Amino acid sequence: MKHLISMRDIEREEIEEILEEANRMENLLNNKKPLKLLEGKILATIFYEPSTRTRLSFETAMKRLGGEVITMDAKASSVAKGESLIDTVRVISGYSDIIVLRHPREGAARLAAKYSSVPIINAGDGANQHPTQTLLDLYTIKRELGKIDNIRIAFIGDLKYGRTVHSLVYALSLFNNIEFFFISPENLKIPEEIKEYLRRRGLRFKETKEFIDEEIDVLYVTRLQKERFTPEEYEKVKGSYKITKEFVEGKNFIIMHPLPRVDEIDYEVDNLPNAKYFKQSYYGIPVRMAILYKLLRDSDKALQ
Amino acid sequence: MKHLISMRDIEREEIEEILEEANRMENLLNNKKPLKLLEGKILATIFYEPSTRTRLSFETAMKRLGGEVITMDAKASSVAKGESLIDTVRVISGYSDIIVLRHPREGAARLAAKYSSVPIINAGDGANQHPTQTLLDLYTIKRELGKIDNIRIAFIGDLKYGRTVHSLVYALSLFNNIEFFFISPENLKIPEEIKEYLRRRGLRFKETKEFIDEEIDVLYVTRLQKERFTPEEYEKVKGSYKITKEFVEGKNFIIMHPLPRVDEIDYEVDNLPNAKYFKQSYYGIPVRMAILYKLLRDSDKALQ
Amino acid sequence: MKHLISMRDIEREEIEEILEEANRMENLLNNKKPLKLLEGKILATIFYEPSTRTRLSFETAMKRLGGEVITMDAKASSVAKGESLIDTVRVISGYSDIIVLRHPREGAARLAAKYSSVPIINAGDGANQHPTQTLLDLYTIKRELGKIDNIRIAFIGDLKYGRTVHSLVYALSLFNNIEFFFISPENLKIPEEIKEYLRRRGLRFKETKEFIDEEIDVLYVTRLQKERFTPEEYEKVKGSYKITKEFVEGKNFIIMHPLPRVDEIDYEVDNLPNAKYFKQSYYGIPVRMAILYKLLRDSDKALQ
Repeated sequence: MKHLISMRDIEREEIEEILEEANRMENLLNNKKPLKLLEGKILATIFYEPSTRTRLSFETAMKRLGGEVITMDAKASSVAKGESLIDTVRVISGYSDIIVLRHPREGAARLAAKYSSVPIINAGDGANQHPTQTLLDLYTIKRELGKIDNIRIAFIGDLKYGRTVHSLVYALSLFNNIEFFFISPENLKIPEEIKEYLRRRGLRFKETKEFIDEEIDVLYVTRLQKERFTPEEYEKVKGSYKITKEFVEGKNFIIMHPLPRVDEIDYEVDNLPNAKYFKQSYYGIPVRMAILYKLLRDSDKALQ
Repeated sequence: MKHLISMRDIEREEIEEILEEANRMENLLNNKKPLKLLEGKILATIFYEPSTRTRLSFETAMKRLGGEVITMDAKASSVAKGESLIDTVRVISGYSDIIVLRHPREGAARLAAKYSSVPIINAGDGANQHPTQTLLDLYTIKRELGKIDNIRIAFIGDLKYGRTVHSLVYALSLFNNIEFFFISPENLKIPEEIKEYLRRRGLRFKETKEFIDEEIDVLYVTRLQKERFTPEEYEKVKGSYKITKEFVEGKNFIIMHPLPRVDEIDYEVDNLPNAKYFKQSYYGIPVRMAILYKLLRDSDKALQ
Repeated sequence: MKHLISMRDIEREEIEEILEEANRMENLLNNKKPLKLLEGKILATIFYEPSTRTRLSFETAMKRLGGEVITMDAKASSVAKGESLIDTVRVISGYSDIIVLRHPREGAARLAAKYSSVPIINAGDGANQHPTQTLLDLYTIKRELGKIDNIRIAFIGDLKYGRTVHSLVYALSLFNNIEFFFISPENLKIPEEIKEYLRRRGLRFKETKEFIDEEIDVLYVTRLQKERFTPEEYEKVKGSYKITKEFVEGKNFIIMHPLPRVDEIDYEVDNLPNAKYFKQSYYGIPVRMAILYKLLRDSDKALQ
């Protein structure tokens, strides 16, 4: 693995390798001893659109490994003087040992990888891919359920625009015997091409507008963005997709959410054992540590 | 001590413990050798309003101890997507070992402490508390006068809105035999509740509009903000509260100022031995090192 | 050397010392082992105007040496409250061991050096000086041609406003037997005072509007800024000063450019062996490492 651009590039075996490495990282974190695995290495974050949470998560992961970070807010920089993505990547790959790139244009990360002399991690290219989010979602399922195969997972909320959801569905399809439930308002249904893909692979899924009364293992909640609705629709939809304590109590599923949440999940739910979204956010650290370490080790003989 | 939220939470004994630890830190700094006391630890700064100086001072303190820093500009982040302070703190406390929080709302730091899994340091919650500023003020007095008890201190400038002044007055009231002088224009007088508090505790104070002709040990100067006056008033007031070389020369008091100054103190005063405001700013580093170290040591058995 | 303010302050011998130290740094970088030469030291960058690339280059250099960085965006800070450059420098020099300063006003760095208790590096003071850029240009010539004496160098583009060009011309004049070619549109000719200076020192130069047909060693390209022209003029000039593959192929000169480029150099040129501008950008790291290390070693006995 030279870069991490898209989940489509990696096989189940490689995913499992990353999750295992992440588990090793989590254990190292629990030791609370300073790590020096990436001492002397520099991560450059290049963000063409802001995403503080993702940036901080990578920054934390790198620093937990003893590495350093330089941060380029692309908007405020040479880009403003008309510099191309390719030139920026060529220059910054001369400064750093690995790059995390966020860009609004689909395909930007793959283009960057062609010109970079160091590994590129895609931290979001438009509506397309954000593979480390998917990997941390998988890690959360593995850690909390002990397995990824043979699970029943319900996605709820905005299933149309949510890159996170699409990417996780594709990734889960690499595992065995997954059953999907898609719960969304009419205007935010899961795209036809994803259903087509699942059908082609012979995977079971069900699509509804209301909560389901099925035994599930995972409830994956996403934010309903106000902008997608008229004000009246929004109020109606908001109410009927809210996860409440009453709904959750006594159930066995875990609740995941890519965060930030607005009010899709009642605050009272936070203290139930089902709520795993803050843990999920935390798991982003060992997962990103694993990816940074793996890519750097593969690119730098001195680390082997 | 689990968090540092308000000076009201800490006793004289604990203050003295912090000042002693700060003194140890100052000596370590003077050695000019790399410190590793907080190696592998991560401080997260979360600023809901900008305060570059305070942020840099904490960042420097952490880095001087061998620790790392991640910086969250709350305005440009998930907060913009509607995330609550509580969620932000829960997520960031999963990334870091200690948090410095600045927020415009009174009580924000105490609320954050309830939900954080790591220690919170209040770096200003509205007009309320900014305890590390008060501790560095106390440290400056101790270092420059050799004592805090039995001193006479004059405050000059904006005594109405100055959080710094109020907080230092309360803190000094824990020491023995302090005498206060409050010098301010009519519209910026020290609040009645502070005078009431001093009276209740039987502490001596004097309030005037003009400079006093008393032997004092400390002259604590604050900025007069233009916005508080009409243009004509401002010019008049500005002139009559300016600290000049003529006024200071031959006197024994030390001059303190929380900085930044605008023109409350003539530049010529900077070279007089009385001027301690740049030292005071420097003392912020060992004081914040002491607080970071103390809170982390108390929260993490591995550091003990 | 206490500060690095202007190329005018340093002699040829000192330049060569820095370039040798930079060469040592480049070799250390190639070893890919973590360096600890500046462990425990803090660089403060103070930028009164943005220059992400320069800031990142210094930040990288410091971190490659095992040091730490604090970053002050002067616009968003105490400066907004009316603090003077002098006060800012006095405070920040209490936090850090060395300062990199960028300021729009000529002479700002020299003024800052008077009040700073730590070394100041000028990272640009208006149209005046940016000495580390000049040193990295010299280093590039030395590394790629094996010498600086006896070379023929052509500058092309905006020779009127380009601080980079002026500074490099002066610096090269300290070396032996340099021949200059200045190629620019009429309205962007090299200033008369520089030609006067070269004449006084008896140095050969030629000035033209078109490409020259001379054997040269270095072609130094600069950006033509749209704002300097009417739209029609710009289109015309842009075309006739563009460096193309056809023009370059088969020639022996190296091509340098301070970057970012817009479209002065065709992307096809990037893969020719002549193209050295990305290497030049990379060389900024070892050169800045050398300067940081030299200034800190000279100011701090503990490092000697």
